[in-house]
Amino acid sequence: MPRLLHHKLDPASRLCRLMFAEYGVPADLEEVKPWTRESHLLEINPAATVPIMIESGEPPIVGMLAVLHAIEERYAPTAVAGLFPAQPRDRAEMWRLLEWVLLKLNDEVTRYVLEEKIVKRDQRGATPDPGVLRVAKANLAEHLLYFNWLFATRQWLAGATMTLADFALAAHLSSLDYLGDVHWDTSPETRHWYARIKSRPAFRTLLNDRVPGMPAAAGYADLDF
Amino acid sequence: MPRLLHHKLDPASRLCRLMFAEYGVPADLEEVKPWTRESHLLEINPAATVPIMIESGEPPIVGMLAVLHAIEERYAPTAVAGLFPAQPRDRAEMWRLLEWVLLKLNDEVTRYVLEEKIVKRDQRGATPDPGVLRVAKANLAEHLLYFNWLFATRQWLAGATMTLADFALAAHLSSLDYLGDVHWDTSPETRHWYARIKSRPAFRTLLNDRVPGMPAAAGYADLDF
Repeated sequence: MPRLLHHKLDPASRLCRLMFAEYGVPADLEEVKPWTRESHLLEINPAATVPIMIESGEPPIVGMLAVLHAIEERYAPTAVAGLFPAQPRDRAEMWRLLEWVLLKLNDEVTRYVLEEKIVKRDQRGATPDPGVLRVAKANLAEHLLYFNWLFATRQWLAGATMTLADFALAAHLSSLDYLGDVHWDTSPETRHWYARIKSRPAFRTLLNDRVPGMPAAAGYADLDF
Repeated sequence: MPRLLHHKLDPASRLCRLMFAEYGVPADLEEVKPWTRESHLLEINPAATVPIMIESGEPPIVGMLAVLHAIEERYAPTAVAGLFPAQPRDRAEMWRLLEWVLLKLNDEVTRYVLEEKIVKRDQRGATPDPGVLRVAKANLAEHLLYFNWLFATRQWLAGATMTLADFALAAHLSSLDYLGDVHWDTSPETRHWYARIKSRPAFRTLLNDRVPGMPAAAGYADLDF
């Protein structure tokens, strides 16, 4: 059974957990706090990031790009379509939106929210900086406008079929939703998509997550939110 | 012939240009300044980033992840090894270091140097903030320590063979080197590796680049630097 070093609210870890669940692969989860830079973690990954996938007798697979490619190569079903579309132009659109979420959305929204609400509190009991959260909130509203625009004309983020890009966006939005930062009321198209992806069996594992001392926002685990 | 929308000092664009050159694919280069957010660019890519690859009769391929996968899928030679290693564990190490360079090095060094030295000057004739450059410089020194440590025990960044991770690091360091920000004297192992990759025919196109009003630092184009 693969072991995954992760953090419950780390979106890249969530993306990998969704892939495991979607492909029916039980994974042994080991939670770490990357920001504490424990020697145990640094020995495996000097960048002190998660996810890290470990299979017995093999060197660890380190980082989100390495892990998501490894899961796809090892565990994607061959009989039915996996999370990488078969057609080159569909794959290109998946990579475009995966990059949008993993880099741009992360860079403008998620990393700040997690730093302010989780890392600062855990590291030194500090409260979030309202100015930073305000900027992240405004940025998220812009991103949601774009996602709403996409979902108004397509069933899934990258087109007609569900892809890894959907899981990436669901991973990020679910972390933000846990912390109460997604205003679904003003984003009906994205909400409609999120309701669909949230009701997939693969999503259940995320909905059961609870971070000690940081209760989930109302509606986080509800399929009818 | 594929067309590539790029910026001369954008490392992600340089990575794609190195791939094209290594695979012997002539590409038609069209330079854009992503930070001006021209409507021409925004129509193709609302994220206003490069690289973007355009082949006639097909939808544009947008963003570094989409373009690098598309180049690899379309143009990698099948007879000899391409830039993606054949063995899963070697590929995992390539992805780990590719992520290190494209995300971490970019995030802690390259993006700040380019923003301060290129974007600010072009947008409003402003001079770089010395405080920001100082932090970027200190961060780069830390990264070079790690790369030196790796290159002390391996021929190429991700192991025994040259991979996409080498091109990614070469793309970033060459942009920084153009701007005079790499102190090779204190990084003999990385310098030794860079001399090898710099002398590849694929690298020539980058060494001829000149940004108007921003001359290349001494040694930028020298194979013996």
